[in-house]
Amino acid sequence: MKEIVGQMKAELWDIFDYLHRHPEISWEEWGTTEFVRQELEREGYRLRTFADCPGVVAEIGTGPFMVGVRSDMDALWQEVNGVWQPNHACGHDAHMTIVLGVAKLLRRIGYKPPGTLRFLFQPAEEKGTGALKMMEKGAVDGMSFLYGVHLRPVQEVESGYAAPAIVHGAAQCIEGRIRGVAAHAARPHLGVNVIEVGSAIVQELSKIHVDPQVPASIKMTKFHAGEKDANTIPDYAEFALDLRAQTNEAMERLVEGLRHVVNGVAAIYGAEIELVERTRIVAAHPDSDAQQLMKEAIIAVLGAERCVPPVVTSGGEDFHFYGFQRPNLKTTMLGLGCDLRPGLHHPQMTFRRDDLLSGIEILARTVINTFATFAPQGEKERVSVAANH
Amino acid sequence: MKEIVGQMKAELWDIFDYLHRHPEISWEEWGTTEFVRQELEREGYRLRTFADCPGVVAEIGTGPFMVGVRSDMDALWQEVNGVWQPNHACGHDAHMTIVLGVAKLLRRIGYKPPGTLRFLFQPAEEKGTGALKMMEKGAVDGMSFLYGVHLRPVQEVESGYAAPAIVHGAAQCIEGRIRGVAAHAARPHLGVNVIEVGSAIVQELSKIHVDPQVPASIKMTKFHAGEKDANTIPDYAEFALDLRAQTNEAMERLVEGLRHVVNGVAAIYGAEIELVERTRIVAAHPDSDAQQLMKEAIIAVLGAERCVPPVVTSGGEDFHFYGFQRPNLKTTMLGLGCDLRPGLHHPQMTFRRDDLLSGIEILARTVINTFATFAPQGEKERVSVAANH
Repeated sequence: MKEIVGQMKAELWDIFDYLHRHPEISWEEWGTTEFVRQELEREGYRLRTFADCPGVVAEIGTGPFMVGVRSDMDALWQEVNGVWQPNHACGHDAHMTIVLGVAKLLRRIGYKPPGTLRFLFQPAEEKGTGALKMMEKGAVDGMSFLYGVHLRPVQEVESGYAAPAIVHGAAQCIEGRIRGVAAHAARPHLGVNVIEVGSAIVQELSKIHVDPQVPASIKMTKFHAGEKDANTIPDYAEFALDLRAQTNEAMERLVEGLRHVVNGVAAIYGAEIELVERTRIVAAHPDSDAQQLMKEAIIAVLGAERCVPPVVTSGGEDFHFYGFQRPNLKTTMLGLGCDLRPGLHHPQMTFRRDDLLSGIEILARTVINTFATFAPQGEKERVSVAANH
Repeated sequence: MKEIVGQMKAELWDIFDYLHRHPEISWEEWGTTEFVRQELEREGYRLRTFADCPGVVAEIGTGPFMVGVRSDMDALWQEVNGVWQPNHACGHDAHMTIVLGVAKLLRRIGYKPPGTLRFLFQPAEEKGTGALKMMEKGAVDGMSFLYGVHLRPVQEVESGYAAPAIVHGAAQCIEGRIRGVAAHAARPHLGVNVIEVGSAIVQELSKIHVDPQVPASIKMTKFHAGEKDANTIPDYAEFALDLRAQTNEAMERLVEGLRHVVNGVAAIYGAEIELVERTRIVAAHPDSDAQQLMKEAIIAVLGAERCVPPVVTSGGEDFHFYGFQRPNLKTTMLGLGCDLRPGLHHPQMTFRRDDLLSGIEILARTVINTFATFAPQGEKERVSVAANH
């Protein structure tokens, strides 16, 4: 298999170069969608695209047991060499190259899945809303296993190494508004100063306690009050909070604690405080079966000594919505070492391309292992018979 | 004297009507300056105006003992019936009418001061910077007594009543900037969150203690941080504080306390905090001689039962800079009741015009009493001799 992947190198680098030179931001990945669609059509996949959003769902094989592989597609909007532009600084161009590589490799080796093999190219991972949209489209309906992949910075996983799971944390943005009572600054007792209310919220945030074993933080990251003269007690504020937690339970605890804080502070000061929950990214909850299958594939490709433990990171990833919203769907993400420097989202991020080839082989073997281990016996026999014809 | 003032009524109402219909905001009182100059020129006053700022200084008499009467000139910038415009909602048009009335009355009765009598029409009282500018111009150099006047809202002094002093508080605006350290919100430990720094300042403000007998307050009235995404620890904030105190000592204590808070909070959080002291209005420190002279004039005009005690108000007035910066200058302000409703600075503020006539007579008598009581004996004789010729 390694040999066949090696032969695909030039084709894969062309794909990567095209994608890298044509970055598109979240929800605008239309050119990327068309490119991916054509690549998969050429390989004989059944294809689905959408009129109202970018994204590609490609399928081969039939039968109720379904395994999926997912890639994200969107670039970041960044200042690169002084110019704001879309830029693939999060490696989604590499992820697409890997997943297209898996789709091509499995065809080149003549693999016939005992069930349905589906590839998902989803938009808007950076917005945290692309996975939810794909689920609305039914992209994981009936699916049993779903695999993802993300390049890891060199500090987490070195080149030539890989992890069978990435334990992303949960992240949530909550916005808020405070309404107090305006007054002349000479008569502060007649007003309710929203800055004092905001300050009280900040103080109380540090007293929301979650299990200290679980990394978690909640903090105010925006606060705006007082548009008019400084001699007026301000009566309106807008703020935003950023919440992070390594588990969804800890995140729930933070949000619940915040609600208590807001109710209590509002009561103390006689202010109205409104919370609006914005983008939420759920924490990773990698499935043990999926991890085990991926671990075996990593060992087969890189060797046992190069399979590292799951990577724990406080960053977020919308891949985990698939497993969170569909508890029967078993998921995990390959964490691929590739000498990535200086870090994800850095405008000048670089990595070692050849490591993508290992990623392709690991995911292809994981898919094959998954069908081999978990597809119902009848399916495997049916395909085996068909293959003999 | 009352009779002569009564005869001036039509002339005074013309003056008031003109000024009320031609409001000009702070530092733009050029038309008002020209109008006042012409009115005083007609009465034979020696006049001084300025190329670089509005304002009029008018003089009569000679000799080193000098008594002054001051009026402010500027209107507020307000929304009146839905349209933003200059508007005399603080009664400065009435103050000018009164002080012009005093200047005219003293001429009509043929008063010859045993010394120098000076009238000051100063710009930009609302900005808190007009009095300072007039002092730069030497407008109170060598002056011994200076009197001012301000209409009082009906809640403080009723129509037909007056107070020999208005005990305004000190007011100060201090702006600030906080510089912290930006970080990704998933890594709050690598940043210094300026909102947490600002919240700590707000908390500590309430622990700055001044003598509880002295009304005082310090509070944050503006705070802006977090321009970018909510998933970034913000590293820059701007804020403003409003400080009020009934005495200059208490104000000094608040400012000193604030400096300690800022130094302490900066040290705790590793942030840089910069303070910029903006407009400062000093507290009234009415002179007892000046008050006594004005009190006698009020009693002579309105009767003893209509002379009320000094009005204490937390509002500010830049008149008090004259006495603050020139400790030998004795000052007080007449607090004139005139059925003023609903309040100063209200766009639809109204008052009873006839009370201005009492104000004119009170100030004229105060000036005469002051010269009579405090002018050096030789001066009084000299003028007396001249008057006989």
